[in-house]
Amino acid sequence: MSVQKKLINDPLKVADELVEGLIEAYNGEVRMVGTRSVVKNSIPDGKVALLVGGGSGHEPIYHGLVGRNLADGAACGDIFAAPPPNIVFEATEAVNKGNGVLYLYGNYAGDVMNFDIGAEMAEDEDIDVRTVLIADDVCSAPPTEKDKRRGIAGLVPIVKIVGAASQKAPNLDELEKVAKKAVLETRSVGVSMSPGSIPATGKPTFEIEADKIGLGMGIHGEPGVGEIPMSTADELTPQMLDMIIEDFEKDDDVEALKEGDDIVLIVNSLGATTMMELLICLRKAKDYFNSRGINIHDVVVGPLVTCQEMTGISFSVTRVDDVLKKFWNMPCQSLCYTKMTGRYGDLS
Amino acid sequence: MSVQKKLINDPLKVADELVEGLIEAYNGEVRMVGTRSVVKNSIPDGKVALLVGGGSGHEPIYHGLVGRNLADGAACGDIFAAPPPNIVFEATEAVNKGNGVLYLYGNYAGDVMNFDIGAEMAEDEDIDVRTVLIADDVCSAPPTEKDKRRGIAGLVPIVKIVGAASQKAPNLDELEKVAKKAVLETRSVGVSMSPGSIPATGKPTFEIEADKIGLGMGIHGEPGVGEIPMSTADELTPQMLDMIIEDFEKDDDVEALKEGDDIVLIVNSLGATTMMELLICLRKAKDYFNSRGINIHDVVVGPLVTCQEMTGISFSVTRVDDVLKKFWNMPCQSLCYTKMTGRYGDLS
Repeated sequence: MSVQKKLINDPLKVADELVEGLIEAYNGEVRMVGTRSVVKNSIPDGKVALLVGGGSGHEPIYHGLVGRNLADGAACGDIFAAPPPNIVFEATEAVNKGNGVLYLYGNYAGDVMNFDIGAEMAEDEDIDVRTVLIADDVCSAPPTEKDKRRGIAGLVPIVKIVGAASQKAPNLDELEKVAKKAVLETRSVGVSMSPGSIPATGKPTFEIEADKIGLGMGIHGEPGVGEIPMSTADELTPQMLDMIIEDFEKDDDVEALKEGDDIVLIVNSLGATTMMELLICLRKAKDYFNSRGINIHDVVVGPLVTCQEMTGISFSVTRVDDVLKKFWNMPCQSLCYTKMTGRYGDLS
Repeated sequence: MSVQKKLINDPLKVADELVEGLIEAYNGEVRMVGTRSVVKNSIPDGKVALLVGGGSGHEPIYHGLVGRNLADGAACGDIFAAPPPNIVFEATEAVNKGNGVLYLYGNYAGDVMNFDIGAEMAEDEDIDVRTVLIADDVCSAPPTEKDKRRGIAGLVPIVKIVGAASQKAPNLDELEKVAKKAVLETRSVGVSMSPGSIPATGKPTFEIEADKIGLGMGIHGEPGVGEIPMSTADELTPQMLDMIIEDFEKDDDVEALKEGDDIVLIVNSLGATTMMELLICLRKAKDYFNSRGINIHDVVVGPLVTCQEMTGISFSVTRVDDVLKKFWNMPCQSLCYTKMTGRYGDLS
């Protein structure tokens, strides 16, 4: 396998340099804080703050989720690495406006360890911190062991909803409740056809045969539930969505997905998979949910949670009741996801 | 070179199937019309209509530019192929609200021929049609032969501005003036490191050596101004931006780009080039313009104008005066580009 040509400079500085560029992409709305944190310039006093974060190299997440009606800040790690505790602490201090900080990030061992230490450092400074982990990848552990699941593209609807809720949340308890509910109602399944590469070396993150698909692979190439033969969009889409539906059914903590339910659907590219393919799969997903009487309230399609030039796709489903729908429908703006109005809203 | 694995079904139906998915991605805001056109459901009577279009396979453009404060419709061709005249005509009839239709599309021979025939068919039905061609690729012909230039990622700021202007344009003349001005003030330069593939065959769209960059290549792999050695982000970015600045200088139809000017900057991925790389290049572009006293009014970063999994990047610059800035700052929503508010606007 040939080394991937990348437009970078010093391979060891890609995370620092990309975050510099990200600050410019926000055009005055965010600033760099401390070692490598991205923080909004205007966070109202007394706001319950929302902090996200994780490894770089998956752009536009995680730091691209800072924005209007979204996260207040992000603690940015190096490529595919958790942010160190000092970065988490610096970000926490910067977003804190006296009413507590909610940490909302993907469930990876390194992130959990470092965010926990960062939280301890913050608590030493009398900052109230609460953590909700995103663990939406149904292929990474069974429903009885949800605490072992990885966080993948389901983090986009979750952060969108919690970011909206954080604008008016009276306190950390209330925001935590919304976050736990959004996490509970979100499930994802991903597949991959070919790897991304590590920017510093150009080497692939995993190997897979030319005629195979990795079912349930993680966004760093973590193993899933096995390999299946290369497939068509119309065969693969229902196979993946069945796994989401079945997981809702098997999980005692949540109701089965049923006729009349409203969902937000994310069709994510892991990187090099084209929007053409995403749209062809979305077309099949629409039929799938229509035939079950499940209403697609809104759809987001694109490369949102990526691993460099990895090819693959993931579906994420968030069931939205009236409360979650209200938060979903609020406008938002960020590098990762921008929404002008609700589904049927008028032009403002 | 191995055949690219793609999540498709019948290789000959990808354009039809992706447009079906695109309709769903718009969640009730657009519908399919005739053979393969995408048209907004609510176009006010008497509105001067804006129609875009071109070949499929470059998603999220062209059909992803239909939306709020953007285009009213798109005539969609097959993969990398111009829409046939009947599709152009069907789209024209559907968007026409009695005050004329502006065609705004990339300058490719097949598109020009078919849109022109479509316009004749429309004029037989007493629909007033005007055409403005997008020809922003400075590497495809010298400034003295701008009518030979291809349309590449500069179409995004142009359609965004003209779409906003079309909301209140009193007649086709006024909208045409805005479109011509936006085209005149827009320049792009692209490069490519590796090809995309043709979905029906999996074969690459062009060939390039492993240690080379194609400077000025078009979005289908059209030849540019030569090959240069693989480079770093910080070397390549000023080299590309110099070509844009020099083109403004050499073109007698337009003023040179100078200190104090405001620009909108597009940093586009041709497909598989990561947002990480785009952001690293943006970081350098910011320094470049800052050092010249040119003000980046706004930035858009992402895979907007693509050619499947092609790697490469393009910069587009649109100089915005107070009139163009007003249109730029309006909110918009579409699959390709969504903007909630102006740069420093408040949350609505």
